[in-house]
Amino acid sequence: MTRVGVFGANGRVGKLILEDLKTTDDISLSSVFVRNNLDFNVDPSVLVSSDIDAFLNACDIVIDFSLPDACEVLLEGALKHPKPLVIGTTGLSTHQANLLKQASEKMPVLYATNMSLGVALLNKLVYQASAALEDFDIEIVEMHHKHKKDSPSGTALTLSESAARGRGLDLNKVRVSGRDGDIGERTKDEIGVMALRGGDIVGRHTVGFYNDGEFIELNHTATSRNTFSKGAIRAASWLVDKEEGLYTISDCLEL
Amino acid sequence: MTRVGVFGANGRVGKLILEDLKTTDDISLSSVFVRNNLDFNVDPSVLVSSDIDAFLNACDIVIDFSLPDACEVLLEGALKHPKPLVIGTTGLSTHQANLLKQASEKMPVLYATNMSLGVALLNKLVYQASAALEDFDIEIVEMHHKHKKDSPSGTALTLSESAARGRGLDLNKVRVSGRDGDIGERTKDEIGVMALRGGDIVGRHTVGFYNDGEFIELNHTATSRNTFSKGAIRAASWLVDKEEGLYTISDCLEL
Amino acid sequence: MTRVGVFGANGRVGKLILEDLKTTDDISLSSVFVRNNLDFNVDPSVLVSSDIDAFLNACDIVIDFSLPDACEVLLEGALKHPKPLVIGTTGLSTHQANLLKQASEKMPVLYATNMSLGVALLNKLVYQASAALEDFDIEIVEMHHKHKKDSPSGTALTLSESAARGRGLDLNKVRVSGRDGDIGERTKDEIGVMALRGGDIVGRHTVGFYNDGEFIELNHTATSRNTFSKGAIRAASWLVDKEEGLYTISDCLEL
Amino acid sequence: MTRVGVFGANGRVGKLILEDLKTTDDISLSSVFVRNNLDFNVDPSVLVSSDIDAFLNACDIVIDFSLPDACEVLLEGALKHPKPLVIGTTGLSTHQANLLKQASEKMPVLYATNMSLGVALLNKLVYQASAALEDFDIEIVEMHHKHKKDSPSGTALTLSESAARGRGLDLNKVRVSGRDGDIGERTKDEIGVMALRGGDIVGRHTVGFYNDGEFIELNHTATSRNTFSKGAIRAASWLVDKEEGLYTISDCLEL
Repeated sequence: MTRVGVFGANGRVGKLILEDLKTTDDISLSSVFVRNNLDFNVDPSVLVSSDIDAFLNACDIVIDFSLPDACEVLLEGALKHPKPLVIGTTGLSTHQANLLKQASEKMPVLYATNMSLGVALLNKLVYQASAALEDFDIEIVEMHHKHKKDSPSGTALTLSESAARGRGLDLNKVRVSGRDGDIGERTKDEIGVMALRGGDIVGRHTVGFYNDGEFIELNHTATSRNTFSKGAIRAASWLVDKEEGLYTISDCLEL
Repeated sequence: MTRVGVFGANGRVGKLILEDLKTTDDISLSSVFVRNNLDFNVDPSVLVSSDIDAFLNACDIVIDFSLPDACEVLLEGALKHPKPLVIGTTGLSTHQANLLKQASEKMPVLYATNMSLGVALLNKLVYQASAALEDFDIEIVEMHHKHKKDSPSGTALTLSESAARGRGLDLNKVRVSGRDGDIGERTKDEIGVMALRGGDIVGRHTVGFYNDGEFIELNHTATSRNTFSKGAIRAASWLVDKEEGLYTISDCLEL
Repeated sequence: MTRVGVFGANGRVGKLILEDLKTTDDISLSSVFVRNNLDFNVDPSVLVSSDIDAFLNACDIVIDFSLPDACEVLLEGALKHPKPLVIGTTGLSTHQANLLKQASEKMPVLYATNMSLGVALLNKLVYQASAALEDFDIEIVEMHHKHKKDSPSGTALTLSESAARGRGLDLNKVRVSGRDGDIGERTKDEIGVMALRGGDIVGRHTVGFYNDGEFIELNHTATSRNTFSKGAIRAASWLVDKEEGLYTISDCLEL
Repeated sequence: MTRVGVFGANGRVGKLILEDLKTTDDISLSSVFVRNNLDFNVDPSVLVSSDIDAFLNACDIVIDFSLPDACEVLLEGALKHPKPLVIGTTGLSTHQANLLKQASEKMPVLYATNMSLGVALLNKLVYQASAALEDFDIEIVEMHHKHKKDSPSGTALTLSESAARGRGLDLNKVRVSGRDGDIGERTKDEIGVMALRGGDIVGRHTVGFYNDGEFIELNHTATSRNTFSKGAIRAASWLVDKEEGLYTISDCLEL
């Protein structure tokens, strides 16, 4: 049984991880790190601590979905007491990113801003399709809920980069985010990346490849935020017996 | 048997109409108007003429897919010898549009820039959905082949107007044709109209209505240009026994 | 402010209704009917009672998602003390259905097995499309989570009936639920209704109309079960000031 | 300039190949094999012959879309005068299949029942996704025009086999072609393969992978039959300088 320590257990994804760990077989919650409020509603067998060393001692692997400054505390602690780390915290500073890199020289560290297994696979498929179907026009459409503030989504940008890389293109030069007016025929290399917003859509991405006579459309849809917590737990199961190094979610696909 | 005169028989859609009229039951080709070359490859029983009066005399109804100046010749002829007219020519001048209006006071005239029955129906459905689902966010995506020069398509704009009308909105104030950067949350009234380009897609339009908990997407796809010729022939069968007046393709849906 | 009494508050949908009523403006929870356990976690201002008369007195309208026998208790109580009723309980016996009909002669009663506004609208659109596009072939695909035991879904059957009614067809004679082997060309009147199962899909229905040259696909997707609770609350707001009579969810679309 | 000999030039795909070869750069038509009627409408520089040796002498590579008996004539001729062969003829007898195998020991032979580049790629992607997403439920939907007589399509079966192979499953034991009635929960290993029929759809295949929280759908759509002729021409360009051996369309993707 792999024992998991959850860092950032009060966050949106952290809560889902605690919930999802109740129904897993070979992996279970053993410790939770909290800054102050120790009155945390978990099984009495789970250690709830604000002491990073105690927290790390009580687990075989850490899953972290916190904030950059909190993540820094984790990384500094792990540099002293190494443990495999699955990190999903976004917005790390240069200093924090360096700490993460140092950590990966002493322990296995998996870092990903989207823990969805499906998105990781889609990125691989998009790269292959882009390279193999060199004559095909590429268009990407993403849709998210009406509250999302930035466009296009980070995942759409990553998919666009996979597509551009398959063609040896510089995404910054070929990305088109809207079309309006008498703009003339489509150029060969442009990659349209259109953002739709509405309702409560968790996340939907379609990468299309269009040629005379045929087209291919590769779609990923997240139906609930659990896709991120489940992805992190699966990543933890995979990472726990690996050697030191920096891994991505794609690595645990083992294609 | 309804006898059809085809005006603009050398054009892209005109040729398809001649082809499609070979397999219809209650309606058939009786006359073709040409400017000069009378050596036209049709059944010997069909009148091929550059004389507008003779052309009109030999048919019960006219289908026109020509150019504005040619259409003017047709309208002037029909004002003298009235016949039901199905007109699909785009880009009419104000003078030509006035002639068309005058004609509609003497004979039945059906005018449409998209003769597809499906698109006509979709417009009706979109208006109803927009009015009934008042809390839902509206987003429209259209896709056409890589050679199309204007964005969004005329059909996408008509669909957007149907959606805006269902909400009492002014499309010019609410239409969004691209999203890029840190643009904040979606506003309630905006209508996204995104244009994709690629391959040889004849025409694909999706109008989506998104709310918390559910969404509806209404799609029309043209699989060949025959959709326009078949739509015109069906419109002719419907129009031939109507009273004078100006009709649209929606009228012949008889919802 | 409309005061709502919730019947069946312990059920799957009942719980969602209580949750959703916390964020509504002109309508709020005023009473909850329970059989035994009065220790119910709601605002102290809400009446929690096992007395049907007291429950009815404390509200302007009732929303019921319970079981047939419980619903019978509600209907008998309401026949003595009439209140507008929104009923989503399925599997009523003939006797219970008769009680419901009797109730609708004394008070407004809205009965629906799917409270989704979008599905109600889709049914209307499907009927219209089926009638207007008489030459088009009709095919329906539904998808639900892997735990669903019956196929096709009740909603898919209702949609199929709307489609068949638009053509004057008897669904029992034309429905096809699978195709395998050398079965020959599609016949004009058949309606394919295919059921997909997998993952945690809440509910997805697509009704397609296919012709030479074009097709239309009308899709509804439920993204969470809240679509049913929200639909019931909206139905209650609409029903509360109506006259006695039996209503369906379509009536509150007011198309 | 690669010189192509077309075998079966009177057939449905053969005609498209002749048409498509008019607009290619590095490859062009040099000879056409016909059984009797030498009065064939091609450029005078092209050899039209009913003599298999002359036909083979006049080209660098052969593309064949004919019937099994005709294909046998080609294979026997090529065994004497080897040329690279692209063969798309379906329904070969055991004897003819043996001849094809013998030929592949003397010359490069590419054999495929679907020459679409996109379908070849989709097969590769489906295999990878099936293997990588082992917990996901697999469902396949194909749609073709109303005249198609067999279900599911050969391409859908090939895709199903790719999916089953990725899981180590026997397709014959797990394929489900319809669901109707009270059939209970979906079993883990079953693969639904549903066939839709209607309108003039050239060919549409979607392979879906569904899990709790997310799903992936991989779609291929043929928009015209030219996808098969263009695929064959591309295959010819690729095959012409290869060594003897039996190749498939996937080989020329060079993933």
